[in-house]
Amino acid sequence: MLIVGERLNTSRAGAAAMVGARDVEAVRREAARQVEAGAAYVDANAGTFAADEPEVLRWLVTTVQEAVAAPLCLDSPNPAALRGALEACRAGAGTPQGLRPKPLINSITGEKARFGAVLPLVREFGASVVALCLDDAGMPSTADDTVAKGSRLVEDLLGAGVAPGDIYVDPLARSVGADFGAGAAAVEAIRRLRSTYPDVHAICGLSNVSYGLPRRSLLNRAFLVAAMAAGLDAVICDPLDASLMAALVAAEAVLGRDRHCSRYLKAYRQGRLEQGLGQG
Amino acid sequence: MLIVGERLNTSRAGAAAMVGARDVEAVRREAARQVEAGAAYVDANAGTFAADEPEVLRWLVTTVQEAVAAPLCLDSPNPAALRGALEACRAGAGTPQGLRPKPLINSITGEKARFGAVLPLVREFGASVVALCLDDAGMPSTADDTVAKGSRLVEDLLGAGVAPGDIYVDPLARSVGADFGAGAAAVEAIRRLRSTYPDVHAICGLSNVSYGLPRRSLLNRAFLVAAMAAGLDAVICDPLDASLMAALVAAEAVLGRDRHCSRYLKAYRQGRLEQGLGQG
Repeated sequence: MLIVGERLNTSRAGAAAMVGARDVEAVRREAARQVEAGAAYVDANAGTFAADEPEVLRWLVTTVQEAVAAPLCLDSPNPAALRGALEACRAGAGTPQGLRPKPLINSITGEKARFGAVLPLVREFGASVVALCLDDAGMPSTADDTVAKGSRLVEDLLGAGVAPGDIYVDPLARSVGADFGAGAAAVEAIRRLRSTYPDVHAICGLSNVSYGLPRRSLLNRAFLVAAMAAGLDAVICDPLDASLMAALVAAEAVLGRDRHCSRYLKAYRQGRLEQGLGQG
Repeated sequence: MLIVGERLNTSRAGAAAMVGARDVEAVRREAARQVEAGAAYVDANAGTFAADEPEVLRWLVTTVQEAVAAPLCLDSPNPAALRGALEACRAGAGTPQGLRPKPLINSITGEKARFGAVLPLVREFGASVVALCLDDAGMPSTADDTVAKGSRLVEDLLGAGVAPGDIYVDPLARSVGADFGAGAAAVEAIRRLRSTYPDVHAICGLSNVSYGLPRRSLLNRAFLVAAMAAGLDAVICDPLDASLMAALVAAEAVLGRDRHCSRYLKAYRQGRLEQGLGQG
C-alpha cells in the first residue's frame, strides 16, 4: 500500500500555523515524522494562501525536500502553483540517497480547462498524476458514473502518452451521511476501474466518506479496508494515526499483500499495533 | 448482516463450565446477552462432550430456547446430535413472540458420508444449512478450489430441493500465518460464489484467519470488513466483542447496507462505537 502523508496541508490547523510562520524546522520535522511512519510520498498543499499559493507551495516543497528523500505529492488545482512546485522538485531531485523519485501531481480531472492546463505539466516534468473522476458535468453520483468519468480520463491520459503506472485514479468517495450509497459506489468503482486497467493505481482520501457523521475515524478505517479489498493500492491519509495504520497493516495481511505477514509481524514487534486502544 | 452468536460453544472455557454444570441460569443469561447485542441466531455446540454430545446438545438447545425467541444454530458434525437438537427445536418452536424461525444446521460438507447423513435432516426439518467448502479431497487451498468445492455443494443442495436462501456457504478461511494468501482466497471465493449464486448467503467464522499471529482481534476485524466488501452477509462471531461489532456497524454504513446510516447512528447514541477497527 502506497501511503501519501497528508499532514502538510494548510487546511489543517497545525500545517497552517507552521507554514504561515515559514517555520522551517517544524515543516522539516513534520515531513520526517510522516516518512518515518510509512509515508512513501509527502503531500504539500498551500491552498489556503490564495494569491500567494504559488510562492508558498514552492517554499513548502523546497523545505520538505531538505528534510526527506521521499518524493512529493503536489496538491493544488492551480497550474501556476503546480509549475513552481514542479520546478522546485526538479531543483531538489538529487538527494544523499540518490535521485528522488518523480513527484505526484494532485490532481488532474476530466474538466476541459483543468485537463488542458495540467496535462502539459505531467508530460513536461514526467510526473505521476492523481486523476479525479470528475468532469465538467460535475462530481460522480453512482458507481456507473464514476467508472464512466474515470475511464474517459484514464483513456485520455493513456492516449496522451502517460504510462498506466503513473496514473492514480481517485473515485472521489462522497459522504455516506449525505448519500448512504456513496461508499459502496466508490468501492465498486475502484473494483471495476482496476479490473479494466490493472496497471493503473487506485487512490483516495478517507475523510470525505464520514463527513457529517460521528466517530469519523471508525468509518474511515472501515472504508479503507473495504476499498483495499476492492483493489485500492494507494491512500492519502495521516500516517501518524496509529489506529488507521494498524487497520491498514492488518488489512494487507488478510488480503494476501504481506508476504509471510512479515510487515504485520514487524509492526507488532515495534509496538505499532497496540496504540489507539479504547479510542473511538 | 446476520450475526450468529458463537459464545455457547463448549470449546470456549466459559461455555464449557456452564454447560458442564448444566447451569440453566448461566446458559439462559448467555443466550439473552447475545441476542440483546445483535445476534439473530444463537449457536449451540457441545462438541467437547464426545459420546454425551447428543444428550448435552439437546439440553443446551432446550435451555437456550427457554431464554430467547431467536432461532438456534445447531453446531455439530454428528448427525445423531443434530437430529436430537432439531427435535428439541421443533418442540420449542412456539414462543410468546410467535413461531420461532427455522434453525440453521452447522454444517453440511461435500464429503459423501456427511452430505448423505445431513441432507435428510435439512429436508425433514426444513432447516437452513451452513455449507462448508470442503469435500473428501480435503480443505480448499486456493480461491479456485474453494469456488469449485462450494459450487458443487451448492448445486447438490439446490438439486435436492433446498431453497437458495436457506444455504449459507462458508469458504473456510484458513490462517494467513500459515499461508499468507489464505485470506485473499477466502475473500475472492466469497465474491465469486455470491456473484454466481446471489440468493445463497455467504457466512464464515473469523478466528481461523488469524491463528498463530499476534493481535488476532485486529486481523479478525480487518478480515470481516474485507469479506463484507466482497459480499459476506452472515458471520459467526462474539456479539459481545465491542470492537468487532463497531467495525461491523461501520462497515455496513460505508458499504451502503445501512439505509441513511440509521443503525450506525443508533449504535453511536447507545455508546456502542467507542471501540473500533484499528485498535489492538
